[in-house]
Amino acid sequence: MPEKYVDVDTLKYMLYDVHNLQNLLSRKRFEDHDKESLDMFIDSVKEFADRELFPFFKEMDENPAYHKDGKVFVHEQVKTMMYKGGEMGLISAPFDYEIGGLQIPLLAQTVAYYILDAANNHLPGYAALTQGAAELIIHFGNEFLNETYVPNMLSGVWGGTMCLTEPQAGSSLSDIITKATPTDEGHYNISGQKIFISGGDNDFTENVVHLVLARIEGAPKGTKGISLFVVPKNRPAEGDALEWNDVTTVADFQKLGQRGYCTTHLGFGDKGDCRGWLVGEPNKGLHYMFLMMNAARIAVGRGASAIASAAYHASLEYANERPQGRKLSADGKKNPDEQQSLIIEHPDVRRMLLMQKSVVEGTMSLVLLAAKYYDLIETAESPEEKEKYQLLLEMIIPIVKTYPSEAGLQSVNNGVQTLGGYGFCADYILQQYLRDIRIFSIYEGTTGIQSQDLLGRKVTMKNGKALELLSQEIMATIQTASGIPALQSHAKIMGDKLKLTQKILGHLMPHAMQGNFERYLADASIFMEYLSLVLMGWTWLDLGISASKGGAYSDEFYESKLHTMKYFFTYELPKTSGLAEILMNDETLTIKSESEPIQ
Amino acid sequence: MPEKYVDVDTLKYMLYDVHNLQNLLSRKRFEDHDKESLDMFIDSVKEFADRELFPFFKEMDENPAYHKDGKVFVHEQVKTMMYKGGEMGLISAPFDYEIGGLQIPLLAQTVAYYILDAANNHLPGYAALTQGAAELIIHFGNEFLNETYVPNMLSGVWGGTMCLTEPQAGSSLSDIITKATPTDEGHYNISGQKIFISGGDNDFTENVVHLVLARIEGAPKGTKGISLFVVPKNRPAEGDALEWNDVTTVADFQKLGQRGYCTTHLGFGDKGDCRGWLVGEPNKGLHYMFLMMNAARIAVGRGASAIASAAYHASLEYANERPQGRKLSADGKKNPDEQQSLIIEHPDVRRMLLMQKSVVEGTMSLVLLAAKYYDLIETAESPEEKEKYQLLLEMIIPIVKTYPSEAGLQSVNNGVQTLGGYGFCADYILQQYLRDIRIFSIYEGTTGIQSQDLLGRKVTMKNGKALELLSQEIMATIQTASGIPALQSHAKIMGDKLKLTQKILGHLMPHAMQGNFERYLADASIFMEYLSLVLMGWTWLDLGISASKGGAYSDEFYESKLHTMKYFFTYELPKTSGLAEILMNDETLTIKSESEPIQ
Repeated sequence: MPEKYVDVDTLKYMLYDVHNLQNLLSRKRFEDHDKESLDMFIDSVKEFADRELFPFFKEMDENPAYHKDGKVFVHEQVKTMMYKGGEMGLISAPFDYEIGGLQIPLLAQTVAYYILDAANNHLPGYAALTQGAAELIIHFGNEFLNETYVPNMLSGVWGGTMCLTEPQAGSSLSDIITKATPTDEGHYNISGQKIFISGGDNDFTENVVHLVLARIEGAPKGTKGISLFVVPKNRPAEGDALEWNDVTTVADFQKLGQRGYCTTHLGFGDKGDCRGWLVGEPNKGLHYMFLMMNAARIAVGRGASAIASAAYHASLEYANERPQGRKLSADGKKNPDEQQSLIIEHPDVRRMLLMQKSVVEGTMSLVLLAAKYYDLIETAESPEEKEKYQLLLEMIIPIVKTYPSEAGLQSVNNGVQTLGGYGFCADYILQQYLRDIRIFSIYEGTTGIQSQDLLGRKVTMKNGKALELLSQEIMATIQTASGIPALQSHAKIMGDKLKLTQKILGHLMPHAMQGNFERYLADASIFMEYLSLVLMGWTWLDLGISASKGGAYSDEFYESKLHTMKYFFTYELPKTSGLAEILMNDETLTIKSESEPIQ
Repeated sequence: MPEKYVDVDTLKYMLYDVHNLQNLLSRKRFEDHDKESLDMFIDSVKEFADRELFPFFKEMDENPAYHKDGKVFVHEQVKTMMYKGGEMGLISAPFDYEIGGLQIPLLAQTVAYYILDAANNHLPGYAALTQGAAELIIHFGNEFLNETYVPNMLSGVWGGTMCLTEPQAGSSLSDIITKATPTDEGHYNISGQKIFISGGDNDFTENVVHLVLARIEGAPKGTKGISLFVVPKNRPAEGDALEWNDVTTVADFQKLGQRGYCTTHLGFGDKGDCRGWLVGEPNKGLHYMFLMMNAARIAVGRGASAIASAAYHASLEYANERPQGRKLSADGKKNPDEQQSLIIEHPDVRRMLLMQKSVVEGTMSLVLLAAKYYDLIETAESPEEKEKYQLLLEMIIPIVKTYPSEAGLQSVNNGVQTLGGYGFCADYILQQYLRDIRIFSIYEGTTGIQSQDLLGRKVTMKNGKALELLSQEIMATIQTASGIPALQSHAKIMGDKLKLTQKILGHLMPHAMQGNFERYLADASIFMEYLSLVLMGWTWLDLGISASKGGAYSDEFYESKLHTMKYFFTYELPKTSGLAEILMNDETLTIKSESEPIQ
């Protein structure tokens, strides 16, 4: 195994210098925290990850979670993740003191989880989903549900899941058919099947609390008739006893990657005795779920970025140690008497590593920006401020989820290539990162769905106000960068890209205005690729500004940030030119009714 | 398992209509073959692949080849591949009648192997490497070697391998240290280690004949001191007996993909009794090997394209069967009362499938073009003709190897995405194709090395004559296309891309002329990506011309080719604009001595 999976200095630099956590800490909610206490928290998480997560990463892949005789068997580190993680406050971190939370900003918690994801992406999900499930109960559940479930979940003694997908519906949640039948006893009887349930069961926690989308009998069709239920694997009975709640693990999914993170097929009410408790009001389930979705999507982007980070450090380590080939002499030949070069000395290897670094650090900053917006919304001091950051977060969230997943995959792919034949070998870790990261562009809404959200909802929301706010933020960064001589040319490029974006939207928008949404959205995924690069250009310009200021780290540290910024502007951002051409082409080749063939 | 893995109609259309096999058949070497006999050959290969290869594809992945107690265990279909394949002439196809060959054009053999690769890419390599090893003996070995080894290899009774890579050398063949010590008995004593030897051993063939690069004691350093040896696993002894030749399998490599195709670490002469027989003259080993390398690189491109084909058909089948989601109405909403759409009706899915189809069929045609050039060289009727096709083949070969591997991976990746969560599941076949194809950009010279070859050697060879010839071929296609109204705009675009290529080279070439090869080649991989797209644009324009003529297939068949051509011009070719910007940027961020940082 390589030695390093994340650069904690860079994470802290992003946290304090780039995203200015101190600013958030001045808000009332976070006033008990300071840099020192949060550094301690982060360092203890790193130590925990080094000791309890990273060493088990490969064996969890080689001995995947599996299903046998109705039970799911997972690696025993799941127990450590849940119980020790619970003790450390990893599950309770963002919640209010009064319910046992730590009132830690999501920005800081995201840094902590980034470390965990980079160390071993098969484990943190067990805790993170428990947190997500608890959050739904905390926000929308009644007192009974809060008292019964939340404390055990925050301590990691009980696990939690989100149950959305059904076999016949896939991404189309409006087609959910899991049934909830009211009873006179305060609960509903639940029956149905859910698939792709991450962390759906395990041997170690005493219970698993499922947050289940289901349809109350007689509810309206489509998304407006879906309700949310707490459906525990074991329901509280007399005293402290638990009794089985007719939740069965029907099967599991063996997967390309994340093989230590179990993915299950659950059956509810096969014996007619599965009880569910309604969360909040009937028919608002999808609404509740989507209020939590931004945090979930930040988490997906974070996980993908973290895997890309681990892969980057693994390939960098290899490139720094492996001698191979020689430098070209002035005659274009190689001299066999000369010593071999390390492969990191070859420009093509440097280019691949720089691509990785630019994706890793760029997405790290973008994910943290989203977390910061989230915190700013939660602690907004005026309705205007709240709306501003809500719109900004909504605007960037599809990209925060998608770009780390898509570019992260390409970045890990470069890491594999750096190792040559060894990259393809099971003894080396790169191939595992490649398999693990592949799911991220599918999780929580595929890239296609995120792209429809970006162009279809976010660009047009409030008459384009969210996009307008984002442009203002970018303009402000351009303004600042224009005052720094070394960044002036990059600032100018970003200005041009903003204008190009307007031009593209000017080309596409008439389709939406004419009601031809199929045409408007046909190339949404290309627009996603385009706008992601623009957003990353902005992110790197912002990183360039911070790096230009210097600070507590070494000169080399800041120089490497500036160098990577230049890489992004030279090698990645220009790809927007080709993408813009595609977006402004009037051929409609992918709309079936207008131009059929495929075969 | 899906039903289809390759479209034989398209393959035959490429063979006869696009690449005009009939033309080749008029050459003396191939005069005994006609369309009817070759159709029968291809159909029998398809039937063989359906019966003996495709059904075993998944289980060969699930039960990988493995090494135990010095032996390698492979799936028993390896026996069928070698023996039945040998019987069918799959190994002997291209060779002369007089040595038991069939004198089949490589163009036709490539179609046959394409089918095999698409059916189960873990098996054909055993036969193909045996053919490659035999070819080296046939071309450069003496009568003794030919008589002793070739017949058993062509019949598939003995296997064959190529042994180039060594642990300390990787891609840098000049650092080979395997030692060959002359004896008085006509053989050399061989000692050394070779790694990444595909098909390096098996239980089923009676022998494995290794073609080994080694250094005769006292030979010059570097690539000029490398010789080629026949080193059998078992050496012929008295009568028909074989005795063990001190070749051991030290270990194997467990891999991300192609797990049924064993990859071994071989030791030669651990007991001091390993004999090797020199092939041709001393110190010419690398030269011989590289004369065979074009065929090997065509084979890599073919394999990658074939895997992409199988993945395409698998995801197409899924998209045609899976209902999910609904069309957007004119108000931008979805009506839950409406029936679900098949996912193939969603524009984003169509776009992904079209990307796959454009890569699959475009690379299929490109690979066959290379095979045609190969046949034209072999049967050239004048030195001028020979030189022309030699230069054309040399010019395109790095792209023929690389583009199917790189774009093929992206194409399979789109296939995985089309299946959503199921794409990530082991029960579905897409994830296997994704793993299998990953090796192709590493095989036979990584993408980085191919890119150096393309820009460093091929573009500059004979003062740019190869590139000039290629441009003339492209110009001729543009000329023809300009006469077809439906293709005029595409012809014009291709003309513009040719001009852009000149501009890029005009920008890069001065670096080479000033002897700054490191700078000249720093962005060779970007140039590879750029020129690959241009070459594919040409390929699709050529396919467009053929399709415009119509012929024996259905109208839908030709329309789908034209539609896919339009897809390529609309969605893929424009990416050259961004790549051109990158290539003409003067920042030198990847040259260590000029701009250090990475970290």
